[in-house]
Amino acid sequence: MVVPAVSSALRPGGTIGVLGGGQLGRMIAISAAQLGYRTHIFCQHEDDPAAQVAGIVTIAPYDDKGAIDRFAQNCDVVTLEFENIPTWVVNQIAQIRPMRPGSRVLEVAQDRVREKDFINWLDIETAAYRSVDSKAELHAAHLALGGRMVVKTRRLGYDGKGQKWIEHSGEISEAWKQLAGAPSIAEAAVDFTAEISVIAARGIDGAVAAYVPVENRHIDGILDRTIAPALIDDTLADKAVAIAEKIVTALDLVGVLAVEMFVTEGGRLLVNEIAPRPHNSGHWTIDACAVSQFEQVVRAVAGLPLGNPARHSDADMRNLIGGDADKWAEFVSEPGACLHLYGKNETRPGRKMGHVTYLKRVSERGRG
Amino acid sequence: MVVPAVSSALRPGGTIGVLGGGQLGRMIAISAAQLGYRTHIFCQHEDDPAAQVAGIVTIAPYDDKGAIDRFAQNCDVVTLEFENIPTWVVNQIAQIRPMRPGSRVLEVAQDRVREKDFINWLDIETAAYRSVDSKAELHAAHLALGGRMVVKTRRLGYDGKGQKWIEHSGEISEAWKQLAGAPSIAEAAVDFTAEISVIAARGIDGAVAAYVPVENRHIDGILDRTIAPALIDDTLADKAVAIAEKIVTALDLVGVLAVEMFVTEGGRLLVNEIAPRPHNSGHWTIDACAVSQFEQVVRAVAGLPLGNPARHSDADMRNLIGGDADKWAEFVSEPGACLHLYGKNETRPGRKMGHVTYLKRVSERGRG
Repeated sequence: MVVPAVSSALRPGGTIGVLGGGQLGRMIAISAAQLGYRTHIFCQHEDDPAAQVAGIVTIAPYDDKGAIDRFAQNCDVVTLEFENIPTWVVNQIAQIRPMRPGSRVLEVAQDRVREKDFINWLDIETAAYRSVDSKAELHAAHLALGGRMVVKTRRLGYDGKGQKWIEHSGEISEAWKQLAGAPSIAEAAVDFTAEISVIAARGIDGAVAAYVPVENRHIDGILDRTIAPALIDDTLADKAVAIAEKIVTALDLVGVLAVEMFVTEGGRLLVNEIAPRPHNSGHWTIDACAVSQFEQVVRAVAGLPLGNPARHSDADMRNLIGGDADKWAEFVSEPGACLHLYGKNETRPGRKMGHVTYLKRVSERGRG
Repeated sequence: MVVPAVSSALRPGGTIGVLGGGQLGRMIAISAAQLGYRTHIFCQHEDDPAAQVAGIVTIAPYDDKGAIDRFAQNCDVVTLEFENIPTWVVNQIAQIRPMRPGSRVLEVAQDRVREKDFINWLDIETAAYRSVDSKAELHAAHLALGGRMVVKTRRLGYDGKGQKWIEHSGEISEAWKQLAGAPSIAEAAVDFTAEISVIAARGIDGAVAAYVPVENRHIDGILDRTIAPALIDDTLADKAVAIAEKIVTALDLVGVLAVEMFVTEGGRLLVNEIAPRPHNSGHWTIDACAVSQFEQVVRAVAGLPLGNPARHSDADMRNLIGGDADKWAEFVSEPGACLHLYGKNETRPGRKMGHVTYLKRVSERGRG
C-alpha cells in the first residue's frame, strides 16, 4: 500500500474551526466527528444548528477581533460554511492558523461581477452580463443584453433574494429603486433545458475529486430537488466535470467548490454561480457515497488525501422548506428515505429545515 | 401514504439522554443529530468520545442520585450505550422519563446465568452451562459439561476479560482463585464453524427490524472483523434472524439488541450472548445501509417507526485496536474505505480506537 504524504495532516483529535453555525457547519461537524476530529464553531447564536453538535462553540459577531483571534488560536485549521464572511476576518485568521479556503477565493465568490469575469477569463462560458452602477448603466445593459434579464446585487443575496427580473425598459426604474443603488450585475436570461451542478473537492496536494453532475430543480428561487446523476449524456457530463475541475484548480482552493451551470438547448454549459463550500445540491452524497461532500471538506482542510467520490446508489434529494419539515413523520416511515433535520427551532417560510434523500440502485447509464 | 401513529413520538428538537460516553454513545449522538434531535450524554469524563459531539453533557458518577435526577429531567427520553449500569439508576430515571430499554432487560443482560436461562426458556439453544458459586461446583460443572469449558464471572467483563479456559481438572483451583470467588458460570466449549450475530431493532409499537446476519472474527477475545453478510445459507440465516426477533420481542425491548451465535458443524445455532444496545458487529450498517443500527436505536427510543434495515452494499468491517489506529493515514487513502475514529486521546493495547468499513456491491447471493 502506498502511504500518502500526510505528515502535515491534522492528527486525529485535532480541532477544525468552522466560521458559521448553519446546517452546512452542522454536517461538517458530524463528518469531522466520524474522522475523529473536534469541531469549533464560530457563530452568532448559542442554539445555531452547528453549535448543537460541536464540542466547542464561540458565540460572537464577526467584527469582534478579539473573539476571532481566540477562536483561531483554539483551532488547528479553519474553514467556513458560507462565503459572505468579511475578507479581513479570513485574513486575520490566516495569520494565526491555516485558513482553507482563503480570502483570494472569497474575493471572487463574494462579488458576482468578479466571479463571472474570472470564469470567462478561464474560457468558460457564462450568460452575457454587465456590471451596473447606475440607472443609466441598467438601461445600457438592457439594450446590450437584448431584452429579458435579471438584475442582482453584486454582493450578498441567496436563494433568489436581492434579485429582480426585467422584461421591458419600463420596469427599469422600479428595479433600480429596489436595488437601492447597490453595485449590481445584469445578466441576460438564459433559455436552459436543465440546471446542473458539480461539486469538486481539492486537497492541499492539488488533487481534485468531483462528484457526478446532478440536476437541480428550483421553486421560487430555492432548490427543491436534486437528482443524482443528472440525466445528461456522458459527453456533457464530462464537460461539466472538467469545468468544475478547471475552476477549483484556478482558484487554488483547498476544500470543496460547487459550480452551478445551465444546460442550453444546443448543449452548451453556462456557469451560473460558484460557492466555495459544501452545497445544498451535494447533500445526497451523505447517503449515496462512501465519502460525502462534508467528509471531503474535512479531508481537504485537514490535509488528508481526498476520498473516492464514487456513489454506491443513485439518489433523489428533496429539500424540506418551511412547513415541509412538519411532515417529518411521513418521511421517517418511507422505506429508503434518509431524513436529515437541521435542529432549527423556528419554522419560517422559505427556510431550509432539512432534507430527505431517497436512495436507488446505481443506474446502468449513470457515471461515478 | 400511510402516516404512522407517531403522535407520541419525540418532536424534532427534543432531547435524547444517553447513559455512557463511549463510542457507541458518540455514534448514537451523531445519528440523533441527523434526525434533528439533541443528545445529552451522562458520563464520567469531560472528554469522553460521546461528550465531544453532544450538545449537553453531565459529568457525574452513577451513584450521584441528584445528578441522575437532574439529567433525567433535562431529557425527553433516555437510553444507554452499555448494559452494566446499576438497575436502580435505570429505575430512578424511569420514574421521571421513559427509559428505553428498561431495568427488566438489564436484569437479564447483566447476568450470564439469567441470560442463558431466559434464552433456553424461549426454546433457543445455548452451549451447555452451569451456575458456579464454589470450587466444588466448578468441579461438578467440569464433570457435567464433559471436559473443555470456559468459566466467566456472571456479571461484568467484556472483550474476553474475566474469562478463564479449563481443559483438565488440575486447572480448576487456579481458575477459581482468579475468579476470586465471584458468582460465575461454566460453559461447555462449543466446536463452531463460525461466529455470527444478528442485530434486531424493536419499536414502541412492537415492530421488529433485523439486519442481515454477519460473521464475526475475533483475535484474543476482541472482535477484529465483521463480514456482512455472513457466508451462511439462507435457511440458517432465516433461523438466526428468527432467533433474534424472538428474543427481542420476549424481552419487550425498545431499542436494539445484538445476538451473538455460534454456528456448529451440524448447522445448529447456539446463542452465545446478547447485548441490549448497538453492537460492534453492527458498525458496518453506518456505511452500508440507509438506516444504521444507531439511527434505529434513535428511532426506537424516540417512538418513531423503525427504518428499513436493507443494505445497499455488502461490507467488511475491521476494528482498529490499540496501535492499529496509528495507521489512520493508510485507511483514509484507500478507496472504498470508510474510516471512523472515536476521539480517544490515549491509545492502549486492546482498546477500540476506531473502525474501517470497506463497501462492496451487494452480493448476488446475499440477503437484505
